[in-house]
Amino acid sequence: MSDENQQHAERMKKVKAARDKMMAKKTDKKGLIIVYTGDGKGKSTAGFGMIFRHIGHGIKCAIVQFIKGKWPSGERDMIKERFPDICPVHVMGEGFTWETQDKERDKEMAAAAWEKCKELVRDESNSMVLMDEINIALRYDYLDINDVVTFLRDEKPHMTHVVLTGRNAHPDLIEIADLVTEMKQVKHPFKSGIAAQVGVEY
Amino acid sequence: MSDENQQHAERMKKVKAARDKMMAKKTDKKGLIIVYTGDGKGKSTAGFGMIFRHIGHGIKCAIVQFIKGKWPSGERDMIKERFPDICPVHVMGEGFTWETQDKERDKEMAAAAWEKCKELVRDESNSMVLMDEINIALRYDYLDINDVVTFLRDEKPHMTHVVLTGRNAHPDLIEIADLVTEMKQVKHPFKSGIAAQVGVEY
Repeated sequence: MSDENQQHAERMKKVKAARDKMMAKKTDKKGLIIVYTGDGKGKSTAGFGMIFRHIGHGIKCAIVQFIKGKWPSGERDMIKERFPDICPVHVMGEGFTWETQDKERDKEMAAAAWEKCKELVRDESNSMVLMDEINIALRYDYLDINDVVTFLRDEKPHMTHVVLTGRNAHPDLIEIADLVTEMKQVKHPFKSGIAAQVGVEY
Repeated sequence: MSDENQQHAERMKKVKAARDKMMAKKTDKKGLIIVYTGDGKGKSTAGFGMIFRHIGHGIKCAIVQFIKGKWPSGERDMIKERFPDICPVHVMGEGFTWETQDKERDKEMAAAAWEKCKELVRDESNSMVLMDEINIALRYDYLDINDVVTFLRDEKPHMTHVVLTGRNAHPDLIEIADLVTEMKQVKHPFKSGIAAQVGVEY
């Protein structure tokens, strides 16, 4: 082994010892409240990615989509087709509010989607429930933030993970969450005139 | 329809018209250079999520992992098992550098992983190549940033998407990228003494 490599090995031994010591203190297990927010791309993608992590391990989970979106979603349709038993998908919303142009209907759909979320979370056979784009419904006051926060804090089974996505996450939600990532937009292809593309946007 | 709903509908009609006009200008299609970076959770998860988007549409893609990680990865193993033809997975790295403690070996593995990346990108039957945690290899100078940037800029086929993940993305990489999201850590469960959990961290 070269001198440089030897020094590197010594340094890394110390780094590893410090990390192992730090990780040894992290022994608690609990169901997490996970929030992916921000104006950048990757929020729903990461939410679905975490669902695939569950599916990969064969652990039961479920998805409620508050906004259906305009395009056929590759990963959603694949889950519906290939893994309907391990991860039922409930598409409860329609388009974005500027697509539907019907606030009363949007509110009814959001309320129904939230009822479905509660039912799925209360069912302890689900290890994770993804509430995709729920932050949009909260932002437009289609749902009451207090209802959501109170339910997650007081009624969510201890070991159940919930993932809430969408930009502009409410501060009260961030307050009770265990894991929050803000996806910050640094560059977006739409800005350079690039269209939405299959396998990227949907 | 109530007055309020009527007003909302009028407003949303204008929003939609503005959006449609904006989106109509976005007609270009091209293979994107996508970077997920930052200190928050969700980078690899979003990278894998985008791969699942491809798999869902039945479009060929591939994964090179520069770091294997400590735990069995649910989504990686599921792809290997269920979708080996549509998305081959190449695990080319071992642990993080403080796990392997062997810089020379780490460099060799990174170089081999990069050769595999180039081979997969040059093969135009692949619509997307995920280079998971390549930013770590670049950060430690296991790979030359100029080699990577030059290849992506000059040799990547026009319609091929590449996704590069890992914290501390190099500024030169961000410069040539089309889509960059910085995953910013707002809250992390490790900080509250929570262990890595199946279906969440791996």
